[in-house]
Amino acid sequence: MDKFFITGAAGFIGSNLVDRLLQDGATVAGFDNFSTGQNEFLQSALNHPNFKLVRGDCLDLPALTRAMAGCDTVFHLAANADVRFGLEHPSRDLEQNTVATFNVLEAMRANGIRKIAFSSTGSVYGEAETIPTPENHPFPIQTSLYAASKAAAEGFIHAYCEGYHFEGCIFRFVSILGERYTHGHVLDFYRQLRAHPDKLKILGDGSQRKSYLYIGDCIEAMIRVMRRGAAQTARHRVETYNLGTDEYVEVNDSIRFICAALGVEPRREYSGGNKGWVGDNPFIFLDTKKIRATGWKTTLTIEQSIVRTLQWLRQNQWVLERRPEK
Amino acid sequence: MDKFFITGAAGFIGSNLVDRLLQDGATVAGFDNFSTGQNEFLQSALNHPNFKLVRGDCLDLPALTRAMAGCDTVFHLAANADVRFGLEHPSRDLEQNTVATFNVLEAMRANGIRKIAFSSTGSVYGEAETIPTPENHPFPIQTSLYAASKAAAEGFIHAYCEGYHFEGCIFRFVSILGERYTHGHVLDFYRQLRAHPDKLKILGDGSQRKSYLYIGDCIEAMIRVMRRGAAQTARHRVETYNLGTDEYVEVNDSIRFICAALGVEPRREYSGGNKGWVGDNPFIFLDTKKIRATGWKTTLTIEQSIVRTLQWLRQNQWVLERRPEK
Repeated sequence: MDKFFITGAAGFIGSNLVDRLLQDGATVAGFDNFSTGQNEFLQSALNHPNFKLVRGDCLDLPALTRAMAGCDTVFHLAANADVRFGLEHPSRDLEQNTVATFNVLEAMRANGIRKIAFSSTGSVYGEAETIPTPENHPFPIQTSLYAASKAAAEGFIHAYCEGYHFEGCIFRFVSILGERYTHGHVLDFYRQLRAHPDKLKILGDGSQRKSYLYIGDCIEAMIRVMRRGAAQTARHRVETYNLGTDEYVEVNDSIRFICAALGVEPRREYSGGNKGWVGDNPFIFLDTKKIRATGWKTTLTIEQSIVRTLQWLRQNQWVLERRPEK
Repeated sequence: MDKFFITGAAGFIGSNLVDRLLQDGATVAGFDNFSTGQNEFLQSALNHPNFKLVRGDCLDLPALTRAMAGCDTVFHLAANADVRFGLEHPSRDLEQNTVATFNVLEAMRANGIRKIAFSSTGSVYGEAETIPTPENHPFPIQTSLYAASKAAAEGFIHAYCEGYHFEGCIFRFVSILGERYTHGHVLDFYRQLRAHPDKLKILGDGSQRKSYLYIGDCIEAMIRVMRRGAAQTARHRVETYNLGTDEYVEVNDSIRFICAALGVEPRREYSGGNKGWVGDNPFIFLDTKKIRATGWKTTLTIEQSIVRTLQWLRQNQWVLERRPEK
């Protein structure tokens, strides 16, 4: 487990993983199409002798295959991570998440690489019947194109593990917070409150309950599982882990933490309804017994993660200048 | 529910559905790329004033969209139905099953059509933990590219039901038998025994347990559910039904039925192992309480279905001349 290939290497999670693996002494090849990735996130890595960056798109199978040569483990993190605007361009999720993952699997097969870690999402449970939601939740109904495309990618990884003897670890994330966060409600609220500290527009009624995980804890969980090689002994050579904290907060709690950290007291304007948008899941809270059984535990609470995220955003205001995604 | 669009209309299930819907007085537009469909199966339909056939491929979205215009309900049956050779050309399942289904959904959206019936498979449960396997079985591990690609298609249908207010009915079939059967173990065995009645080669050890359903019963179930419009009242506007018989047989039972019907006693040569091929599921038996609760029931046993299939094959020997699929 020495030469890693990381798709989405210039993204929020990818770049944090790159830095951590380099720090651990590994050799890392990063791959990113820079659709949402940021050169700034790789400044430190690009000065490291064990890091190589290839600019490319997972939909370009020949380029992907060439870039992957010589690696022995793949972290496939590249994705269309936008959940909210899926209905405006439905083919994006299919292509960027499902087809791209299929290409990663094909590039691995061409290179004789068999170990893959995949960033899936807790959204694949849809509106879960059981909360906290365990990995073996009943066959779910997908409620967003994003989740459907990620669940589809999971299934293809399963089939490659069964058919081509790959070893797969699938991580179903809650929303991730922390350094290099560039997307999500903390950014939206911070952007608003910087522009007008007296007013905050909120999608839904604020009662949506969500769970969040600190980026450092997320990276630690993935590395821990991949080092154990847990999937090698699994019945199907593929293991799935929920990654989240042991708590959840309401959007209104989150607003309270943010306002306290910023020292503002805005008037709240709710759009109403129990969902932020069509396909939004009003309650995401994952059962994390399985990952915690490996000895992993979180180091930050959700409130601490939000505060940490705000600190980073304050120090990296350039992120706010980026056009909001659609 | 009067103007139907049927993809895979020239196939085994599609052509039987076409005939049945025409018989019921409906108007039907058939769409098929004739990769495995047979002109012969549509001879009767092509003489019917309410039937129209368009030769085209679901991967050709503009052609698909044009062909679908004016219809109000889609039966999406076109698929790469080959399970066994998936590992030899993995992109075929992704394209023919997942991407093709996505295109069907997009063509529907472009035409303002919202009702879809989809032919999925009992294979999506992988090696099921619970047998007979209910629709809400725990989140499964896919064991074949075929099943992964069908499960992926299911997820996209869910997301369209949630996001664009489609109404979906997903049918997870066991293997189907009966008139116009062109693919599967009964054909393989019949072909062998016609060539050499004294010898039969069997994949696996013959202990694989499978369930089968008669084509007439399959069609009846789909039509019954679509007429009820069950999905309109479902929580997620999408309903999933297992379709199968209330029994299963071992491959060895199946051989016994076939040999008895043909009056032969071949020497059996087993390839060994409890699976016919990588990704073969050694035990498929679906819980069909949900579809039976609609009042539907099977009219033929598995043995009767096998005998019926053999009768049809004997009368349609041209099917045997087709090159075995790979």
